[in-house]
Amino acid sequence: MSAYDPSNVFAKILRGELPSQTVYEDAETLAIMDIMPRADGHVLVIPKAPCRNIFDAPPEALQAVAVTTQKLSRAVKDAFAADGLTIQQFNETAGGQVVFHLHVHVMPRFEGVALRPHTGAMEKPEVLAANAEKIRAALKNS
Amino acid sequence: MSAYDPSNVFAKILRGELPSQTVYEDAETLAIMDIMPRADGHVLVIPKAPCRNIFDAPPEALQAVAVTTQKLSRAVKDAFAADGLTIQQFNETAGGQVVFHLHVHVMPRFEGVALRPHTGAMEKPEVLAANAEKIRAALKNS
Repeated sequence: MSAYDPSNVFAKILRGELPSQTVYEDAETLAIMDIMPRADGHVLVIPKAPCRNIFDAPPEALQAVAVTTQKLSRAVKDAFAADGLTIQQFNETAGGQVVFHLHVHVMPRFEGVALRPHTGAMEKPEVLAANAEKIRAALKNS
Repeated sequence: MSAYDPSNVFAKILRGELPSQTVYEDAETLAIMDIMPRADGHVLVIPKAPCRNIFDAPPEALQAVAVTTQKLSRAVKDAFAADGLTIQQFNETAGGQVVFHLHVHVMPRFEGVALRPHTGAMEKPEVLAANAEKIRAALKNS
């Protein structure tokens, strides 16, 4: 496995060098809107600790990500009145990973509705901003 | 969301009422072979705490599952010389959940090889036993 490369986009977001639609932040984790969402309300939970994926992550970072993922799961379900939720986490290229800073995908699901394919198309900034605001509001009410 | 139903198959496995190919166990978690694997070495990590999915899980159970998932991820990668790993966790029917006791799918991945479709076909017990033994051996060497 390659070493952690601090030039990845999530590291840049964590350093404030790239913008993001942040919906939650605490001492150990950050939750942001996926800019290529597979469902409206698709968020990513990332640890602040620099780690490539599950193979090199500090266990404490994984524990913090697990707790934040639950908070976001509940908020996303409430914000979009979702019927369910799919969580995915990809490790190395063969495992589906594209950005090499550990991240957990949280995607609201609806009966009979498939996830959108991962086409690489970016969502409109105003749509991401509106969905982020719904999730922030749900977090406040939780 | 429905309440936790203790008649689900993972609750029965936890109570010893159904057999399983167990590869790891500690005070809070259990890891078993998926009997309908989407890849050789597909394991499930489950908390011992009774919970339906991420929405009702005690945070401590999620933290324990996260740490065990990392242990198993490393062992599965080593046991099968995998190039990567895909982790999935499904919540409610719309989210892909079939058994209503929280569980995390850990699936080894190889360059250019897709996951097998979830057909509902059961793997041969001797194949599951052999794959479980590889993972147990990798855990011992880790």
